[in-house]
Amino acid sequence: MLNKIVIFGAGLIGGSFALALKKAHAVQQVVGVGRSVAAMERARELGIVDVIATSVAAAVDGADLILIAAPVAQTGAILAAIEPHLQPGTVVTDAGSTKTDVVAAARQALGAKIGQFVPGHPIAGRELNGPDAAIDHLYVGKKTVLAPLPENSDADIARVALAWEACGAIIHRLTAEKHDRIFAAVSHLPHLLAYVLVDDVAKKPHADLLFQYAASGFRDFTRIAGSSAEMWRDISLANQTALLEELDSYMLQLGRLRASLAAADGAAIEAVYSNAQQARQNWIRTIEAAESQKNIQGGD
Amino acid sequence: MLNKIVIFGAGLIGGSFALALKKAHAVQQVVGVGRSVAAMERARELGIVDVIATSVAAAVDGADLILIAAPVAQTGAILAAIEPHLQPGTVVTDAGSTKTDVVAAARQALGAKIGQFVPGHPIAGRELNGPDAAIDHLYVGKKTVLAPLPENSDADIARVALAWEACGAIIHRLTAEKHDRIFAAVSHLPHLLAYVLVDDVAKKPHADLLFQYAASGFRDFTRIAGSSAEMWRDISLANQTALLEELDSYMLQLGRLRASLAAADGAAIEAVYSNAQQARQNWIRTIEAAESQKNIQGGD
Repeated sequence: MLNKIVIFGAGLIGGSFALALKKAHAVQQVVGVGRSVAAMERARELGIVDVIATSVAAAVDGADLILIAAPVAQTGAILAAIEPHLQPGTVVTDAGSTKTDVVAAARQALGAKIGQFVPGHPIAGRELNGPDAAIDHLYVGKKTVLAPLPENSDADIARVALAWEACGAIIHRLTAEKHDRIFAAVSHLPHLLAYVLVDDVAKKPHADLLFQYAASGFRDFTRIAGSSAEMWRDISLANQTALLEELDSYMLQLGRLRASLAAADGAAIEAVYSNAQQARQNWIRTIEAAESQKNIQGGD
Repeated sequence: MLNKIVIFGAGLIGGSFALALKKAHAVQQVVGVGRSVAAMERARELGIVDVIATSVAAAVDGADLILIAAPVAQTGAILAAIEPHLQPGTVVTDAGSTKTDVVAAARQALGAKIGQFVPGHPIAGRELNGPDAAIDHLYVGKKTVLAPLPENSDADIARVALAWEACGAIIHRLTAEKHDRIFAAVSHLPHLLAYVLVDDVAKKPHADLLFQYAASGFRDFTRIAGSSAEMWRDISLANQTALLEELDSYMLQLGRLRASLAAADGAAIEAVYSNAQQARQNWIRTIEAAESQKNIQGGD
């Protein structure tokens, strides 16, 4: 049982963390800190936070665990505000979608206290934002990646892991660098591609007509383009190197397919489509097998 | 009530059409014609077709309506096989995702009988294929686009429209050219982009690791890459001109965003993401308003 946790940002990610811990009776008190007074008031109305902090000093005083769930570009500034007040018994973690930049910012902000920071990333989301989007089961059966630092104690890593497990999450460990390369490919690039497509369609003179005939395929393909533009701008910038590498790899393949299409080379087009179809079906089967295994083992 | 319909292809599209008409008691007999004996036998087991045709001549004899629901590249050959046996009382339509090429193929195959062909395109789908994917409510509340020819009689157009309305579909009319430009942008291009992404990921040496961390965003973004590779190869080739135009427009925008990312130009990145987020939210609101309007009017 955690006596006191602090969440910086009580939106979808931080709010769902708080609600899940409360549902699991794993926390006594949740203190909220945020830029927007209205959002914090709403988080209190929704039962996400018990107390809205009046200062960072008061917020972190005596806290067991601090979760930073704000846009990733703000992590450094938040850690710098925490550092003077950070007591030995407190563990800090984050929910940022990138890790290399967060670790660098944390080292700079926390200095000798860096051992108290355990970087994390829950792999869960919705296309909605803000306190009203928070739900208590967002993390059930989902992965949370921890990217521990050499300076972290086993006890501090365990405290963060146990909190996420209380939310229903499954803990994975990756280095920050490996994390960022993986998520550039399977998350950050798809977001970028979806945003560019919707932007491209929306800027055409006959956009209204186009949207009128867009159907469920377009809806699913572009779901991630409904995500917070500010957050994904920050993620794109924070993971710039890995994302550029994945984007270049993708643009190269796209250029090749364009050449096949221009040459009406049906066999080359089908080879790409068919490999993709097969790979996706295999992937879905793996997911379904894992889910059915979980059910057999009595999970929910 | 239609006495006899013939479906060429008893998979997702043709099978769902037959099941929906049967559910609405709008047809007496469904005759199936297909390349695969196993698929036709399965369609009969599932109650999609009543009779498996032994010849095209026998199939089309006395038919009120013929639906061609085979991969779009086969439409010309199928129409050529139908033409010698096509009687004056029979209307032929199709479900192809492209229309300009279908109209050209139909003119060549049907010659003087072209007036009996009413081009169509139901805007509905699933990522599954084959008779087992067919469901009786696939078309409920969905658009079916008709692209009538100057040679069509009003009665023939009405027969096709009524059949789709019996399936629950809402009829829209577009010219073949406008249809193809619209669907290149909102359907064919997204499919191409999703296929290329999954193919790109699947070909990387650490593909297994990448798929392990791919989550719901990746799943939705790539859902359309689970579609039939053969069908989408044909669609891509059939709508080559419009698709190349949309792809070039997209690649231009993608190149611009790449430059913004390489320059770490956060404002330029956010402008694209934010415009996309806003446009998608507006679009979703329009869909939801239309759906709630439909419910108020007593639809299901």
